[in-house]
Amino acid sequence: MATLAAEKCVACRVGAPTMTAEEIAELQPYIPEWKLIERDGIPQLERVYSFPNFTQSLAFTNRVAAVAEEQDHHPALLTEWVGVTVSWWTHKVKGLHRNDFIMAAKTDALYSECSE
Amino acid sequence: MATLAAEKCVACRVGAPTMTAEEIAELQPYIPEWKLIERDGIPQLERVYSFPNFTQSLAFTNRVAAVAEEQDHHPALLTEWVGVTVSWWTHKVKGLHRNDFIMAAKTDALYSECSE
Repeated sequence: MATLAAEKCVACRVGAPTMTAEEIAELQPYIPEWKLIERDGIPQLERVYSFPNFTQSLAFTNRVAAVAEEQDHHPALLTEWVGVTVSWWTHKVKGLHRNDFIMAAKTDALYSECSE
Repeated sequence: MATLAAEKCVACRVGAPTMTAEEIAELQPYIPEWKLIERDGIPQLERVYSFPNFTQSLAFTNRVAAVAEEQDHHPALLTEWVGVTVSWWTHKVKGLHRNDFIMAAKTDALYSECSE
C-alpha cells in the first residue's frame, strides 16, 4: 500500500481505456478495505471511515479534499456524524483508472495518520 | 423563509413525535427547493446545490457544517465536483422534526449569501 500511496496521479484524457479486470484484481489487495461497487452504471471504489462525531468526520473530509486538490483528482465525500464515505472513480473514463487506486491508498494513509 | 431561517433548533429527545403530514405541508412552502424523500425507511429533506468546482462545493460544505455545529443539529453532506447534496433529518426521532425545516431554511440562506 505504501508504494501505491506514494504514486502521483497522471493526467487522464476523455475516453482513455478503463482498467481491465486483471488490472483491478492486481491492485485490489493493496486497498483491501475498499469495496468495488457500481453506481449509476459506473464502477467505483468506496470505503466508509468511522469517526466518533461530526467534527472529526468533517476534519477528515477536509484532509482528503486537500490531497484531492493537490493531485487534481476529486472524490465524492459523504460527511455524516458517524463517519465519511469516500468514493473514487474517474469521470473522464466513466469508470476506474489507476489514479483511483492511488487515491484510495492515499486516503487510507491519511486515515492511518488520524488514528495514530 | 426568512423567519424560519432565523429560528433556533430546540433540544429534541429520543422518541419525540415526528411531524404530522399537516405540519410538514405547512412548512414545505418555505423551502420549495427541498425534496421530501425517504432513505432506509426514514423521511428526509434533500436539496442539491450546484457549484462550478470542487473547491466551491467544499467551501459550502464547511459553511453548512459550521451552522450545524452552532445549532447542534447535523446533516449528511455529499460533496462532489458539481455540487453539494444536503440531507436533513432527526436521528433521535428517526424522521422529520421542525429543526430540519429550520436547518433547511438556514442552508438556503447560506446559499443565497454565496450567490450574491
